Amino acid sequence: MSEPIDFYFDFSSPYGYLASEKIDELASRHGRKVHWRPILLGVIFQHTGAAPLTMVPLKGEYSLRDFSRSARFLDIDYTHPETFPLPTQHAARAYYWLHDRDCAKAREFAHSVFRALYVEGRDISMIDVVLDLAARQGFVREELVTALGGGELKERLRAECATALARGVFGSPYIIVDGEPFFGVDRLPQIERWLASGGF
Amino acid sequence: MSEPIDFYFDFSSPYGYLASEKIDELASRHGRKVHWRPILLGVIFQHTGAAPLTMVPLKGEYSLRDFSRSARFLDIDYTHPETFPLPTQHAARAYYWLHDRDCAKAREFAHSVFRALYVEGRDISMIDVVLDLAARQGFVREELVTALGGGELKERLRAECATALARGVFGSPYIIVDGEPFFGVDRLPQIERWLASGGF
Repeated sequence: MSEPIDFYFDFSSPYGYLASEKIDELASRHGRKVHWRPILLGVIFQHTGAAPLTMVPLKGEYSLRDFSRSARFLDIDYTHPETFPLPTQHAARAYYWLHDRDCAKAREFAHSVFRALYVEGRDISMIDVVLDLAARQGFVREELVTALGGGELKERLRAECATALARGVFGSPYIIVDGEPFFGVDRLPQIERWLASGGF
Repeated sequence: MSEPIDFYFDFSSPYGYLASEKIDELASRHGRKVHWRPILLGVIFQHTGAAPLTMVPLKGEYSLRDFSRSARFLDIDYTHPETFPLPTQHAARAYYWLHDRDCAKAREFAHSVFRALYVEGRDISMIDVVLDLAARQGFVREELVTALGGGELKERLRAECATALARGVFGSPYIIVDGEPFFGVDRLPQIERWLASGGF
């Protein structure tokens, strides 16, 4: 099978960021492409009752340590943001708008959003930061401003989140390979074996 | 440093079982011993507000699939128990009683409890099953019956759970290496690197 892999994530998810730095290369080793699908964990958590990881008693403190250590383990730059978690609806909506116009540039934009937050310490919840990052990919700032203000793009992200929920997505990253779901950047080795052997 | 590794787990934890099949060999590759410390997740969850994994919306269904898949990935026998989760206070108390008498046999007992649940499908919440497994290690059944009925052993397990909470334990398996905490069987590769390089 050569269906694309679905990669669900929230732009404010540390483990989502770590997965984003590895998933395309991993998939391409097995002749696969990856569909990147930003969602809003806030919407997901409204349905599941879950809380952001860092707010969970004991687990929250652990997770802060684990984010950085997992990044070092995977050889990825990581600085925990001062504001965390933060709203990512502008970034996610911008991604889908860009994706409809140039999917390769949308991918670069998505990388730049994650790195802005986790390497450069920028506040990606600010619409200006999102517009700057989109402009760097050559998109016309004013066109994106208009799109972000419209109802269509809001509905688009709402629909993506609803689809994600219907597919069982409860966290980030959530990666679906030929119908098989994998949750967490720590499942990349299992995904690799799954792709290599067509399941196990 | 050559301090023992602390391995906290609940006997009804699938990921705890998977870790139990790997942790001693992993540690011994780096000249380390492992302190096995059964605790009760029910007690931990009373403090943190967490729920058993299989009862969490969406995550519960995923976890059932992930238990079996992670077992296959690690090449460990696994059959999900009909009754799950189940109370493990008898098994945990028996472990500490056995450990005070013969720590090697207590380790074998702990393995046999996990395998009774996850390979043989036995109900390890039953005191008779726990007594049978202890008897197989050569312990006198009546002595353990008496100990399990006394207050001392109950207090011992209560104290172990309190110590675990004070050390930040919020789930199973929770493994502490030279003060560094690792949560989940999926952190074994990080533990391996930590032991090999004295941190990273």
